[in-house]
Amino acid sequence: MKNTFGTAFTVTLFGESHGPAVGAVLDGLAPGIAINPEFIAHEMDKRRAAGAISTARQEADEVEFLSGVYNGFTTGTPLCLTLRNANTHSKDYTRTGHLLRPGHADYTASQKYLGFEDPRGGGHFSGRLTAPIVAAGAICRQILAAHGITIGSHLAQCAGINDTPLPTTEPELTETLTQLNTRQFAVINKAAGQEMQQAILAAKQDQDSVGGLLETAITGLPAGLGEPFFGSVESVLSALFFSIPAVKGVEFGLGFGFAPLRGSDANDPFVLQNGQIKTQTNHNGGLNGGITNGMPVVLRAVLKPTPSIAKPQNTVNVATGTQQVLQLHGRHDPCVLHRARAVADAMAAIGLVDLFSQRYGTLWQTGGAPHCTV
Amino acid sequence: MKNTFGTAFTVTLFGESHGPAVGAVLDGLAPGIAINPEFIAHEMDKRRAAGAISTARQEADEVEFLSGVYNGFTTGTPLCLTLRNANTHSKDYTRTGHLLRPGHADYTASQKYLGFEDPRGGGHFSGRLTAPIVAAGAICRQILAAHGITIGSHLAQCAGINDTPLPTTEPELTETLTQLNTRQFAVINKAAGQEMQQAILAAKQDQDSVGGLLETAITGLPAGLGEPFFGSVESVLSALFFSIPAVKGVEFGLGFGFAPLRGSDANDPFVLQNGQIKTQTNHNGGLNGGITNGMPVVLRAVLKPTPSIAKPQNTVNVATGTQQVLQLHGRHDPCVLHRARAVADAMAAIGLVDLFSQRYGTLWQTGGAPHCTV
Amino acid sequence: MKNTFGTAFTVTLFGESHGPAVGAVLDGLAPGIAINPEFIAHEMDKRRAAGAISTARQEADEVEFLSGVYNGFTTGTPLCLTLRNANTHSKDYTRTGHLLRPGHADYTASQKYLGFEDPRGGGHFSGRLTAPIVAAGAICRQILAAHGITIGSHLAQCAGINDTPLPTTEPELTETLTQLNTRQFAVINKAAGQEMQQAILAAKQDQDSVGGLLETAITGLPAGLGEPFFGSVESVLSALFFSIPAVKGVEFGLGFGFAPLRGSDANDPFVLQNGQIKTQTNHNGGLNGGITNGMPVVLRAVLKPTPSIAKPQNTVNVATGTQQVLQLHGRHDPCVLHRARAVADAMAAIGLVDLFSQRYGTLWQTGGAPHCTV
Amino acid sequence: MKNTFGTAFTVTLFGESHGPAVGAVLDGLAPGIAINPEFIAHEMDKRRAAGAISTARQEADEVEFLSGVYNGFTTGTPLCLTLRNANTHSKDYTRTGHLLRPGHADYTASQKYLGFEDPRGGGHFSGRLTAPIVAAGAICRQILAAHGITIGSHLAQCAGINDTPLPTTEPELTETLTQLNTRQFAVINKAAGQEMQQAILAAKQDQDSVGGLLETAITGLPAGLGEPFFGSVESVLSALFFSIPAVKGVEFGLGFGFAPLRGSDANDPFVLQNGQIKTQTNHNGGLNGGITNGMPVVLRAVLKPTPSIAKPQNTVNVATGTQQVLQLHGRHDPCVLHRARAVADAMAAIGLVDLFSQRYGTLWQTGGAPHCTV
Repeated sequence: MKNTFGTAFTVTLFGESHGPAVGAVLDGLAPGIAINPEFIAHEMDKRRAAGAISTARQEADEVEFLSGVYNGFTTGTPLCLTLRNANTHSKDYTRTGHLLRPGHADYTASQKYLGFEDPRGGGHFSGRLTAPIVAAGAICRQILAAHGITIGSHLAQCAGINDTPLPTTEPELTETLTQLNTRQFAVINKAAGQEMQQAILAAKQDQDSVGGLLETAITGLPAGLGEPFFGSVESVLSALFFSIPAVKGVEFGLGFGFAPLRGSDANDPFVLQNGQIKTQTNHNGGLNGGITNGMPVVLRAVLKPTPSIAKPQNTVNVATGTQQVLQLHGRHDPCVLHRARAVADAMAAIGLVDLFSQRYGTLWQTGGAPHCTV
Repeated sequence: MKNTFGTAFTVTLFGESHGPAVGAVLDGLAPGIAINPEFIAHEMDKRRAAGAISTARQEADEVEFLSGVYNGFTTGTPLCLTLRNANTHSKDYTRTGHLLRPGHADYTASQKYLGFEDPRGGGHFSGRLTAPIVAAGAICRQILAAHGITIGSHLAQCAGINDTPLPTTEPELTETLTQLNTRQFAVINKAAGQEMQQAILAAKQDQDSVGGLLETAITGLPAGLGEPFFGSVESVLSALFFSIPAVKGVEFGLGFGFAPLRGSDANDPFVLQNGQIKTQTNHNGGLNGGITNGMPVVLRAVLKPTPSIAKPQNTVNVATGTQQVLQLHGRHDPCVLHRARAVADAMAAIGLVDLFSQRYGTLWQTGGAPHCTV
Repeated sequence: MKNTFGTAFTVTLFGESHGPAVGAVLDGLAPGIAINPEFIAHEMDKRRAAGAISTARQEADEVEFLSGVYNGFTTGTPLCLTLRNANTHSKDYTRTGHLLRPGHADYTASQKYLGFEDPRGGGHFSGRLTAPIVAAGAICRQILAAHGITIGSHLAQCAGINDTPLPTTEPELTETLTQLNTRQFAVINKAAGQEMQQAILAAKQDQDSVGGLLETAITGLPAGLGEPFFGSVESVLSALFFSIPAVKGVEFGLGFGFAPLRGSDANDPFVLQNGQIKTQTNHNGGLNGGITNGMPVVLRAVLKPTPSIAKPQNTVNVATGTQQVLQLHGRHDPCVLHRARAVADAMAAIGLVDLFSQRYGTLWQTGGAPHCTV
Repeated sequence: MKNTFGTAFTVTLFGESHGPAVGAVLDGLAPGIAINPEFIAHEMDKRRAAGAISTARQEADEVEFLSGVYNGFTTGTPLCLTLRNANTHSKDYTRTGHLLRPGHADYTASQKYLGFEDPRGGGHFSGRLTAPIVAAGAICRQILAAHGITIGSHLAQCAGINDTPLPTTEPELTETLTQLNTRQFAVINKAAGQEMQQAILAAKQDQDSVGGLLETAITGLPAGLGEPFFGSVESVLSALFFSIPAVKGVEFGLGFGFAPLRGSDANDPFVLQNGQIKTQTNHNGGLNGGITNGMPVVLRAVLKPTPSIAKPQNTVNVATGTQQVLQLHGRHDPCVLHRARAVADAMAAIGLVDLFSQRYGTLWQTGGAPHCTV
């Protein structure tokens, strides 16, 4: 399956930025999941561009369910959700015409799709495709929330400015994640958030863009999810996170911070806490041997600065076969981190619903997992 | 598919460290691939423990083909390769008994497999499982080599000591990779390699272990491989690399180095070189929008220090439900980087054969890709 | 993947009879396939209800491409096609309310979907779901036609009346299939067709329905397609044909006619015809060991009589838990064979595009297969 | 996945008749399933050739578990089982050399595998490959038996001689299936069985072979298993049954007997039996809309007469490119039905374990499904 994620629960993505619609088919959902339009709208809002630090393109982002929903509940049949593309300024994009945009998929798309790709607005490579992912993720988050699982992300770093680190102890971490989910600009330290936004605006003024680090954490997970090797939780989640446009690195727990350490500093000693097995530290980010150990799963993704910048750039004109200077117009995000955090949350939720459904079956989604264990 | 990688070409892994055998089934191989036992042995040697810096466990690592090979060529039917487990000191491992080894999968395995897992030597979580991966990778590397594709890895950093960076221009890079493939300890700078080995021995003497960074590069790839989103080359390769035991982070191109940059510094300008479209820099590691752009693919993986250390560690005894001190005996690697590089090479090769086979069909493996394009 | 068919080329089906739309996502299509709206409309017409022998429900059956098509060609990205549901008389269907319709999926759907299924018009189990299959099949048929492959079906038997058998020699068979594709009521013998239609009307008048046999043949296939065992052409095509509502049996070549024969009568002797290896007879329906042998593939499917009949039937009222008599109203087909033949053609085409794409790659669809072989 | 069956539970088949071994990898088994060597041996015995009516090739059929089993229980990791090939008379087979055996896969294999296939003993196409299927099925049957599900098959027809039909009421049917599972020659009517065996011997004496019908039934299934369309129980089971060598047709319930009926005769009226919803008749073979309805699942497969016959046959010599007469030597089965019934049982069991595991999760296999429903 080329454009499908999942095993027991699957998401198939489709759409082009300026085509009729973008959408996704979700298969393997249990019947009887209440669809909560307010929560979906809330998640879509987290992703939506807003204010001066984002693109001026504003979509209503209204999710239509073409199938799989009846009387407000999932039916258990394949659920197709779509978002119509309304606010499309194709002219802005065709202006760049035969000039390859650096850092973009213009060239690679033309090589893969042999010139038949829809170039308008980035076509299938547009960030617009993350809208159905967030909608799918909203449904998954509801499923997980009913099982006591919390997911949240923050801008750990943006334009070189750091946010306060996530708490490492669990009730505090869950509380922080819950708060982050209510914030439009997802930082713990609001002063740092102000600084980041100023840095984004400064980059915009310079016709430039910025990147940074997203940190996502998941609490409430039982131990024992995932597979060794190919189906490791790291493999599943990294594949999903690398599907987020602009992500170029993913790490779990200490991640690249492990490199200079010695084993005696890196290992997480096991301890008993109220009769439960926990680890004293969480350097491994909740995962040993690819499988959840009951500690919070913590991962970080780096997003490169948005490639669409107004600054003149050297590139190639594929029609004339000459070097040329490209000057981009149109509506672009000087930073995507504050929007991509909604996609990160969604990706984590999608991955987890698949992992749970593999272990406990589709009906786990609405039923009781503990009863299924021997 | 839980323990299977791939779409058009698949690898299914099986085995336990101290069970009868470890192995893999390769499906989707073209008929007529010449099996080169010398090359397979060479790759197995790269992975094999050797000398004081590695475990004392020595396996013959003889690959037996149970199916799919006839008269020295692949038949095109599923190829099952196995390696018998001979040199097993189960006693060493059972000594730790009910004491959970920190940083290991003992606890997570028991939660996932409910106590039915084979604990001897790490069972299915053992590094021994990477042997069939390397064997599978060797066959894939031969396929790719016939299409002019070179893969190689080096220890970019080990125990905090850096190797010389890979060359960025292509003929030099290919040459360096070719040389690295002949070295038992894969570094460009032999002096740095000496230092690393001394640091490994020092850690061993301290009953401790070290980690580091593996850097893998691939040259000779055409533009247009991979899928947007879920099937991006980053998604495919990261899922494979996170299947390598101890890997806790993966990055492409500048990776985490992108975080503080601005777009104008991060973008790779397109240029014409001898009529071919290339990028002036390769910050994106050969990938735009998840798809190869014809530049070398470059990725780095961080490996945490080996969790098996002789130093006493605090942990939990699951039989008595008490805290206890664990002192590990047995044969352990104070460092796995110099062995894991063979696994990294194999994983890259496996992923690429699948990507090519999806695009050009199974028969591409022995035939001519260019003829298949429209 | 629960509701997805395929490996290299996949079709994911969604929709409910009286929901907003039915549709399918096609993934693994090559870029550059010309979309021919006339041909798609022609195939939709073959499936559409028409005249007294069909349901009175008339849908415009207009296929909308939400993605994957640009400037009249496939882009190579996932193609989502939908058909809006307009002409829905939900009232007719809800009239049966809590009375289980015999021969239908009312009861099984309620057990699988736990009461959350959309019951209107059969919901996801409606024959309406075959509309996107026919649309998908139309695209696949175009791909196959460009490679010289012809698919056609006829009502081999309907209401107990037999059509003339298909010719067994290839140029005649191809010609017959081509003619059948132009006929609204797909029979070779028009007199037999008249008789069948009279029998259908007679059944309708008796508030009853009829079934029969569809025979599908495929010419122009090369030898060597398919896999042994699980991926045999018989396995792939039978799985697709059993997905056609009402199909309860599938056979290839002599099929059930093989039972009383001896090997010496059943085997197809190999012969040389103009230097090509052929079989003298085609008892095996073009398939040996699950793989095409270059002879026409011939299969038959039995369709049970439409379960929706106006005649009173005994059943259970699930609300009251009592036996009751059900009298169905609404628009029903006294026979579905003449419509289902379009679905049979589509299913065969979908299966073949997947088999070819596995062997020769996605790009085979628009390019030249022979160049890909070694 | 080409040579793999399944979604939540998968079986990957490998091996050649005269290669080192045949085997299968089972993935998605729960940990903690007790491996019962006696029961596996019993199933292998059912499949094994025995007496004058079978091939003279006798294999020990000893199943070795290379992985996934520890202390007599499944571990939950991929289980690789193998059977070494010992009793191979390759000379017998190579005698036919370049003469294509009619009804066999010699020609299609050479076209698919381009001459690299292992021709000895039919290679990967050999009936020998059904041995690991039966072993895998034995494990699945144990899982199902613990959930009260019974599977059994009989030779409904052999060489034109009919067995007594299966009982249609459930306790009687279950009892009959249980008895059939203890019989080496699986018929209800022992006199008919004697007649069949005489007919087989008569065919053998005539250097010929016979075919017939296998009927398989499953009792104890809950309603609600399966998917509409592509994942229908008919699609899943037919794909598996068409993977059995020699099967050329599969039908459910009345199957091809539906063709001449009217809806009023074909529909199964719903009735209440002790408060449970059942159908009065079972024409649909336990399946409506592709989903189990709680009645016994009943299916029939036709097996063509064994293609290997000693009688001289016309064929083509591919080396000389001439017509020639083939006279087969070696050990052949004049009939495979009495052996194939073990494969039919195994295929049904494999399919059901996947269907259950999709719905209730992998852990259902050892735990309690009812607790998992909402």
